Amino acid sequence: MPKILIKDNEHKIEVPILLTSVSGKIRVKNRSILNEYGTPVAVRRDGFSLSNYIEWQIGYDVVKKEVNKLAESSLPETEFIGANGKNKALYELSEYIWYFYKWGILSEEDLKSVVNYLNSINEENLIDNNLELQIDRSHPIEKNINGFDFEYTQVKYPLLIHKFGNYEIVTEIKITEKQYAVGTQPMLYLCFPITELRANANLVGRVAEIKEIAYFDITEDNIQVFLEMLKMFGILSNNHRHDVLQIINTILA
Amino acid sequence: MPKILIKDNEHKIEVPILLTSVSGKIRVKNRSILNEYGTPVAVRRDGFSLSNYIEWQIGYDVVKKEVNKLAESSLPETEFIGANGKNKALYELSEYIWYFYKWGILSEEDLKSVVNYLNSINEENLIDNNLELQIDRSHPIEKNINGFDFEYTQVKYPLLIHKFGNYEIVTEIKITEKQYAVGTQPMLYLCFPITELRANANLVGRVAEIKEIAYFDITEDNIQVFLEMLKMFGILSNNHRHDVLQIINTILA
Repeated sequence: MPKILIKDNEHKIEVPILLTSVSGKIRVKNRSILNEYGTPVAVRRDGFSLSNYIEWQIGYDVVKKEVNKLAESSLPETEFIGANGKNKALYELSEYIWYFYKWGILSEEDLKSVVNYLNSINEENLIDNNLELQIDRSHPIEKNINGFDFEYTQVKYPLLIHKFGNYEIVTEIKITEKQYAVGTQPMLYLCFPITELRANANLVGRVAEIKEIAYFDITEDNIQVFLEMLKMFGILSNNHRHDVLQIINTILA
Repeated sequence: MPKILIKDNEHKIEVPILLTSVSGKIRVKNRSILNEYGTPVAVRRDGFSLSNYIEWQIGYDVVKKEVNKLAESSLPETEFIGANGKNKALYELSEYIWYFYKWGILSEEDLKSVVNYLNSINEENLIDNNLELQIDRSHPIEKNINGFDFEYTQVKYPLLIHKFGNYEIVTEIKITEKQYAVGTQPMLYLCFPITELRANANLVGRVAEIKEIAYFDITEDNIQVFLEMLKMFGILSNNHRHDVLQIINTILA
C-alpha cells in the first residue's frame, strides 16, 4: 500500500486507498441491505455505485522482522513486545492515534480511559471467550442431492456490527475458527461508504481508473472513532488486550 | 508433498501423508461427534488418538505453468483445458483413476457412466446453484457486549457430509463465499480415520516423529470411492463439471 500522508500543520492524516485491489486488506464491496456480508465489486468493469463501501481489515501493529510491511509504517522506530513475544512497531490504527496524541487532540486521559476500561473487563467476557458468541451448528438432516445421500448441517458464525454514533463508519467483527489451532478467532473490519472518500472525480456512476487511489482523511472530527476501535480490538481476546495495552504504553511513553 | 508410489504389479498406489503438516492440504484433525467441523491436532505435542482423522482437500488437476506443483504429478505430460482456459495435467484424484483404468480395474463403462450422470444433471441442480444450499443469515438482534452496542447476526454456511457405503471414508462439502467474486464456492474434502493409514508403528497413543509420513493405500478395494468422488466434484459447479468431463475424456483417450 502507498504510504500515509501526515499533514502536521493541518492535524490530518490522509490514508491512500487503492480502489482496484482485489486481494488486499482493503476492498470495495457492495451490500444491498445492512447485516449482509458484502460482496466484492469489480470496479474496473462494473464501476462504483452508491451502495458500495470500503471494507478494511485494519491492523494496529507490524512485526519488526517483516521489513516490507515495516516500511509501510511511518513510525518504524517505535517498539513494543506483542502477546506472541514478537518485537513490533506501531502501524495503522496505533500509528494514527500516536499522531493525534502528539498533536494534543487526544489527551492522556483519553488513552488512560481505554486502559481502565480494558482492565475492567473480565477474561470470560472477552469476545473469544463469550459463550454466546461461539460457532454453532444445526442438528444434521438427511438430504438427497442429485442421487447422493448427504447429512446436511448449517454451521453458524456470529457477526457483530457496531455503528459509531452519527458517523458513517461501522465495524464488523467476524468470528471464525482459528486456522491452525482449536478455538475461535474474532476479526475486526472497518467499513465506510465510498462517498466518504476523496477521489479525483466523483466515484459513483463511473469505473475505476487503472490503479486508482482515493483518500480517506483522518481528522480531529473522526479520530475518536479510531480510538473506540482500538478499545474494541482490546476486547477481542487476551492477546489483543495485551497488545492494545502495550500500544497505549508506547504512545504515552 | 512427497510423490505417490505406483505399484504397477500390485495395482496399488501408495499416497504418502505428511502427518506433521499444519498448513498443507492434508491435516490431522479431531472431532468428538460426527457433523462437527474438526479441529487441527498438534500431533508432535499431543499425539494421536482414536478420534483423529485425516482431512484432505483433494485436487484433481494441476495448471501446467505451476511447475513445482506439476512436478508432484506422475502424469505431467497429460493434458486438458480447464474451464478457466488453462492448460492442465492430471493430478491426485484424476491421476489415481488414470492408473486404475490403465490397469483394467476401472472400465470404460465405469467412466462413461460418470459422463452420462453429469450430463443428466440440470444446471440449476448443481450445488453452487442449489437454492437450498445458499449462505443464509439470521435476523439481526441488538446485543450489548462490554458496553458496546452491536447488531448480532448469525451467518449460516451449509455443510454436506456423504458416507461411502461401508467404507470409513467420508466427503465433506463446505460451502463458502467466493473469495474475490460474488457467489458461493463449494469445497470438497476427503476424510478418513487415521486408523486407515499404514504407519511405521501404531499411531494411536503416541506422538508423531519429526516429519513423519504414513501411507494411504488406494487399491482395487477402494478405487470406486475415488471414482464416486470425481463424480461428486462434477456436481459442485459448471466449471467443476466441465473439468471432470475433460478429465474423463483425457483418461479414455
